[in-house]
Amino acid sequence: MSVVVDNIGLLVTNDRALGEGPLGILRDASIVFDRGVVVSVGPAGQIADETIDASDRCVIPGFVDSHTHLVFAGDRSDEFAARMAGQPYSAGGIQTSVAATRAASTADLAGLTNGRREEARRAGITTVEIKSGYGLDAANETRCLQVAEQFSNDTTFLGAHVVPAEFGDRTDDYVHHVCTDMLAAAAPHSRWIDAFCEVGAFDADQCRAVLAAGKAAGLGARLHANQLGPGPGVQLAVEMGCASADHCTFLTDADIAALAASDTIATFLPATDFSTRQPYPDARRAIDAGVNVALATNCNPGSSYTTSMSFCIALAVRDLRMTAEEALMAATLGGARALRRSDVGVIAAGKRADLVILDAPSYRHLIYRPGVPLIHSVIEAGVTVVAPSV
Amino acid sequence: MSVVVDNIGLLVTNDRALGEGPLGILRDASIVFDRGVVVSVGPAGQIADETIDASDRCVIPGFVDSHTHLVFAGDRSDEFAARMAGQPYSAGGIQTSVAATRAASTADLAGLTNGRREEARRAGITTVEIKSGYGLDAANETRCLQVAEQFSNDTTFLGAHVVPAEFGDRTDDYVHHVCTDMLAAAAPHSRWIDAFCEVGAFDADQCRAVLAAGKAAGLGARLHANQLGPGPGVQLAVEMGCASADHCTFLTDADIAALAASDTIATFLPATDFSTRQPYPDARRAIDAGVNVALATNCNPGSSYTTSMSFCIALAVRDLRMTAEEALMAATLGGARALRRSDVGVIAAGKRADLVILDAPSYRHLIYRPGVPLIHSVIEAGVTVVAPSV
Repeated sequence: MSVVVDNIGLLVTNDRALGEGPLGILRDASIVFDRGVVVSVGPAGQIADETIDASDRCVIPGFVDSHTHLVFAGDRSDEFAARMAGQPYSAGGIQTSVAATRAASTADLAGLTNGRREEARRAGITTVEIKSGYGLDAANETRCLQVAEQFSNDTTFLGAHVVPAEFGDRTDDYVHHVCTDMLAAAAPHSRWIDAFCEVGAFDADQCRAVLAAGKAAGLGARLHANQLGPGPGVQLAVEMGCASADHCTFLTDADIAALAASDTIATFLPATDFSTRQPYPDARRAIDAGVNVALATNCNPGSSYTTSMSFCIALAVRDLRMTAEEALMAATLGGARALRRSDVGVIAAGKRADLVILDAPSYRHLIYRPGVPLIHSVIEAGVTVVAPSV
Repeated sequence: MSVVVDNIGLLVTNDRALGEGPLGILRDASIVFDRGVVVSVGPAGQIADETIDASDRCVIPGFVDSHTHLVFAGDRSDEFAARMAGQPYSAGGIQTSVAATRAASTADLAGLTNGRREEARRAGITTVEIKSGYGLDAANETRCLQVAEQFSNDTTFLGAHVVPAEFGDRTDDYVHHVCTDMLAAAAPHSRWIDAFCEVGAFDADQCRAVLAAGKAAGLGARLHANQLGPGPGVQLAVEMGCASADHCTFLTDADIAALAASDTIATFLPATDFSTRQPYPDARRAIDAGVNVALATNCNPGSSYTTSMSFCIALAVRDLRMTAEEALMAATLGGARALRRSDVGVIAAGKRADLVILDAPSYRHLIYRPGVPLIHSVIEAGVTVVAPSV
C-alpha cells in the first residue's frame, strides 16, 4: 500500500539534485513511499493509497546515530554528580558498567536496550549503530552483540574499550585476547571493529593491532580518537582507513589535514563534551578545511546519557560553531556516511522511507527552541513508529 | 475526592521539616491531596479515594517559571539564525515582535499564548509569570495583559521593554507615557511592574521612575538587570526593593554584596545566555556569597524561545556551576520566592498540589540525561494536566 506525506511546508531531502542548496530543500512538497522505500519526491498533491498531512511542518530525513553504547545495565548518576561537583572524567568509570552488565541476564539486557532504542525513536533516530564494550570477555561481549543485533545492522565489537579488572595492568595480554578468542566469538555478530585510543585505555600500537585483526576478520574499522586530549588516534584512524574517527575533541593542524585528505568522517559527540565538562571541538575549523563530519549522541551511561539528537544539534551550532544546515546534515547524511550506508540519510527515490515530521516550520527550530520536544512523528522504513501525541 | 500519589521512590518536598537536607527528601513516600491542596505528606501506603502509583519514580514540586514573555505573535528564527552565524544580540530585535503583536487579533494572541502555556505544562511548569512588552502603547499593552491574566495570576506590565519606533529617540517622553497613561490602563491587569535596564533600552533613572510609578499604583517591582554587560540594574533592583533582579549575567562584587544583603532574588536565565551566545553568569560565586537565586526560562521569541526548565537546570549545573540540588530548588522554590508566593514551590500540607512525576529515579537525571523528555506526568492544583503517554 502506498503512502503520501503531503503538503510538507519545508522538506529537507539532503539531495542537491532534488532541491535548493546542500540540503536539497523543497517547499510545498510531498513524498510517496511503498513497501518501506521512497517511490517519488515532488510537489504537493501526489496521489497514494493513504495520506499523511504535514501542513505547516518541516520534514527531515530520520536521524542516523552512528555512535551509541545502548547495551548496558546499571546507572552511573552518582559518578555523574561527583563529576559535576568537580571531579574530572576518566575512562575508569566504565568498569562500573562492566560489572553491572556482566551480572545482568540477557533478557534484562535486551529489555533495557529495547527501552533505549524506543526512546531514541521518539527522538527521531531511525538508524542506530550499537557497540559492545561493557562485557570485556568473550562470552559477555558476544552476548551484548547478540542483543545489539536485535536492534541494529550496524553492530560494533568494542572489546578494546578498557582493560577489564581481571587483567590488571597486563594490557598487551588483553589486547591479544581481544584480537584472538574474543574477536573469533564476536565477529559473526558484528559489522564493525572499534577501539578506545586514549591515555588510560589503549595506545596507538594496541589500537592498530585491534583494528588490523578486525579488518582481517572482515569487519569495517572505526575508532574512538582524541577525546580527552591530543593524541595519535585521529591519524591512526586515517592510516587504517576507518570509516569514522569519533570524538575529535582535540584536533591539531596535522589531524585536520589528515582527515581532510581521507575518506574518514570526523564524528563529533558534543553531548559528551557537555556531560564531561570538556571543551567543545572546533568543528568550524575542521569543516572549513574540508573535513567531512557527522554528529552522534554517544548514548552511554558514563559520559553522555542522552538519546536527544536535537540537543546535539543545538550544541553543535551554539558551541561547535556549525551552521544549522551543517549540523542537520551531519546528524543525518553525515551519520550515514560514517556508517558507509547509502540507503539512509537522504529522502529520494530508492532510499529507505525514514523521515521525521517536526512540530515546527523549519529545522532551525531544533536550535532556536532548545530543549523543547519538536518531534511530531517518525516514519521508519515506511512504518509510523512514533505517532503524533495529538 | 482525595487522591494519593503512592510508592514514590524519591520525593523532593523542598521542606527541611519534612525530610532530609535542604530539599527535604523522603524515600518510599506518598502525598495525599484534596480539592487542589496537599493534605499530608508521609510514608508510602496512605489511603485516599484514588491512587496514582509512582513506583521507582522521583516526584518534585512543579516548576515555578518566574520570567516569561508568552504573549507575542510572529517568529524570529531568521534573526536567530543570523545571530548563530555571528551577529551579536541586541535589544532592537524586540521591535519585530512588537509589529507582529500589534497586528494580531486578540483571539489569535490568546490562542498562541494558550499553546505556549500548554507546552510549558508538558515541560513540568505549574506556575508561570507572564509579562507584556510587545504592545508598547496603552491599548496593546493592556490587550496583552488581558490575554496574560487568562493564564497567570502573576502578570507583569513591561511597557518599559524598549522604546517603540514611533517615539524615535524621545526616550524620556516614552518613559513619561509608560508612567502615566499606559500604567493607568495596564495596572488593573497587572500584579507586577518591570523594566529593561540596559544600554539600548532604559537607563537607571528611567527605570527608577517606572518602578516608582508602578509601586505607587500598587504593583510589586522586578527588573531586567545586567544582561548584556555590567550596569546599574542589579543595585537599582535592590534599592527599589524588587522581588527579583533577572538575568544577572554580569555581576560585580558590589552587585553580589548588594543582593546578598537584600530580599531581592537573583534570577538566572541560562537558556538566554545559551541562545544569545553570552557568557554564563557565575552563579557559584553569587550563591557562595549568600545570594538567593531562582532559575527561569525567559521564554520569548528573540533571546530564549524555550519552555524547557529541564534544559535550564542542565545548563545551570554544567555552565553556571550550581549543584543539581541548588538548580532544582532554584527552579521550584526559588521561582516561588522570586514571585513572593508561599503557596507553591513546596510539597507540604496546605500548599497547592502542584507536582511533577519524573520518568527517572532521581532529579539528577534532569542533568544526567540532557535533552531527554523526562516529564512523566504533571499535576496542577490537584488536577492531572499532563497525563502519562503510556
